[in-house]
Amino acid sequence: MWRGGVLHGARIAYETWGTLNEARDNAVLLFTGLSPSAHAASSPEDPSEGWWEGMIGPGLAIDTNRFFVICVNSLGSCFGSTGPASLDPATGAPYRLNFPDLSVEDIARAGFETLRSLEIERADTVVGPSLGGMVVLAYAAQFPGATRRVVSISGTAAASPFAIALRSIQREAILRDPDWRGGAYTDERPPATGMRIARKLGMMTYRSAHEWRERFGRQPATEQTPDDGPFAPEFAIQSYLEAHARRFVRAFDPNCYLYISRAMDRFELAAHGGSHSAALARSRVERALVIGVESDMLFAIGEQQRLAKSFEEAGTATSFAPLQCIEGHDSFLIDLERFGREIRAFLNR
Amino acid sequence: MWRGGVLHGARIAYETWGTLNEARDNAVLLFTGLSPSAHAASSPEDPSEGWWEGMIGPGLAIDTNRFFVICVNSLGSCFGSTGPASLDPATGAPYRLNFPDLSVEDIARAGFETLRSLEIERADTVVGPSLGGMVVLAYAAQFPGATRRVVSISGTAAASPFAIALRSIQREAILRDPDWRGGAYTDERPPATGMRIARKLGMMTYRSAHEWRERFGRQPATEQTPDDGPFAPEFAIQSYLEAHARRFVRAFDPNCYLYISRAMDRFELAAHGGSHSAALARSRVERALVIGVESDMLFAIGEQQRLAKSFEEAGTATSFAPLQCIEGHDSFLIDLERFGREIRAFLNR
Repeated sequence: MWRGGVLHGARIAYETWGTLNEARDNAVLLFTGLSPSAHAASSPEDPSEGWWEGMIGPGLAIDTNRFFVICVNSLGSCFGSTGPASLDPATGAPYRLNFPDLSVEDIARAGFETLRSLEIERADTVVGPSLGGMVVLAYAAQFPGATRRVVSISGTAAASPFAIALRSIQREAILRDPDWRGGAYTDERPPATGMRIARKLGMMTYRSAHEWRERFGRQPATEQTPDDGPFAPEFAIQSYLEAHARRFVRAFDPNCYLYISRAMDRFELAAHGGSHSAALARSRVERALVIGVESDMLFAIGEQQRLAKSFEEAGTATSFAPLQCIEGHDSFLIDLERFGREIRAFLNR
Repeated sequence: MWRGGVLHGARIAYETWGTLNEARDNAVLLFTGLSPSAHAASSPEDPSEGWWEGMIGPGLAIDTNRFFVICVNSLGSCFGSTGPASLDPATGAPYRLNFPDLSVEDIARAGFETLRSLEIERADTVVGPSLGGMVVLAYAAQFPGATRRVVSISGTAAASPFAIALRSIQREAILRDPDWRGGAYTDERPPATGMRIARKLGMMTYRSAHEWRERFGRQPATEQTPDDGPFAPEFAIQSYLEAHARRFVRAFDPNCYLYISRAMDRFELAAHGGSHSAALARSRVERALVIGVESDMLFAIGEQQRLAKSFEEAGTATSFAPLQCIEGHDSFLIDLERFGREIRAFLNR
């Protein structure tokens, strides 16, 4: 692992779309945000909707008639890849807090090794939104020449104090939930309160105040639940957060969440060469597309602007696309038209 | 109470500065944000620093050579005014959740009754920041003619869904803390985790990402504590939040916090007359100053802009001051120069 520690027999779950060409040079490697699985788009094997449905497919922005697309579940996550919830082969019990320190660099390496296992020496493009937008930078800095192009979406070269504050409060909510039990929670009784609060906070920073004003305003709560008790929800925005929190509690493993969340705080591209531009110069990336959203409060547009500047200083041919979506950080999941246009144009060059 | 319910023998704590003139028409009534006491400035009786020290005093923006300034501790709070932590005279035990439903209107009325008890029929100006910026509107709408002027600072005519989301997550952290015990927590064991998380979240939205980037960047944590355990703080921003959280836990009563926080969500000026401007037209306020801060994420500048417009539609002579401070919602506590200039100019008219 990048910060020391060893992981034996790690597995990486991935899905693919399209066909690898004979030259093995049409691979697009896709990293995800904090919580999604490798199921970025539906396929004959799994027709359920993917987290980036509409972006990947024949004739779509990431065109599977042309590219062989590989999406990896992050190392440290809980959807098939090895993480804190996986069984430690040395003990037969889940790793939990015995999982080694995870870094964004390790997530990048896991993607790199996945390509190697597919006998792909060099990716055409490495793409990632949010956490993935950081992972692509760690990928480029660690493996010079291992990708021709990168697309970093709503990411950052180093977490801002605002994002660190948010994530550390989310982690604290989990860590202080009595049901967390030092990481040894049971399936029957996960730290549900901590995960609920973490998810609600996430939702606050994934969208924008502007979008919520248009979408929810001060409409009343849509449903009451039997256990609401005093101080029950009264507004639609509270019902919306509640619905998201409930879905999340059993969908994601709390220890995995803690590990990945902390890795995001710690990431600092400048650790690979002394400055952001020096790290990027090492990468030998030919072309970079940096996308940001003006209403993003978690990964602020200034961070993508500075990243694009660092790419330019590194001598990379760089496109910077500041988008005026109102959906905040999550815009890449929603405004497929604006994002698709930028990604398509970049990949078609 | 405005929403029904009765409170017997309520008391309001207040402090005053300056002298009431013979005409009894030089009163400036000051409402506070969510958590401060009535101690807005030092005085011979209490030389400790007030929460708006430097703003109120001889020759200062709120000039006590000219004005008789009264600051009230909000009804429902815990610094001398009656609130959920006070003893219910009917039972001799604290009200806790038996305290009647509290509204912003009740906080305004408590200030109005305080002036009446001082035999002041009409205030020269009613001033308030944050929650106080909402209370001044409730005051104006409920008591036509009871103030000549108002100053609403970083307030709103109705809480936004973003602010409701933030506050409802803060409340949830307290409500789900096992030590909250349905409001029946003990002095020895308050819901410290919930209050800590609520305060840290508050701090995130009281300041701005920009200020934090300049002030903290990615500097390391300034101190470690013995019980930090796994996932201990690593960055200075975490130490900063931690220090604020610790100070808050025993400084403010959790049930009071819940009551006032919910009152802020519920406030809707349009309830007093059908629209914001109709409510303000009833008030017979002659002049209004509305101040907002462009970096405020909790009470966004658009809210103050719309409020100023409502005052104008109501026929009030209105000044709108959008300030370019970087300290976010809390700017009124920090940038005394910019705020003082606006308030002084308005009061001198």
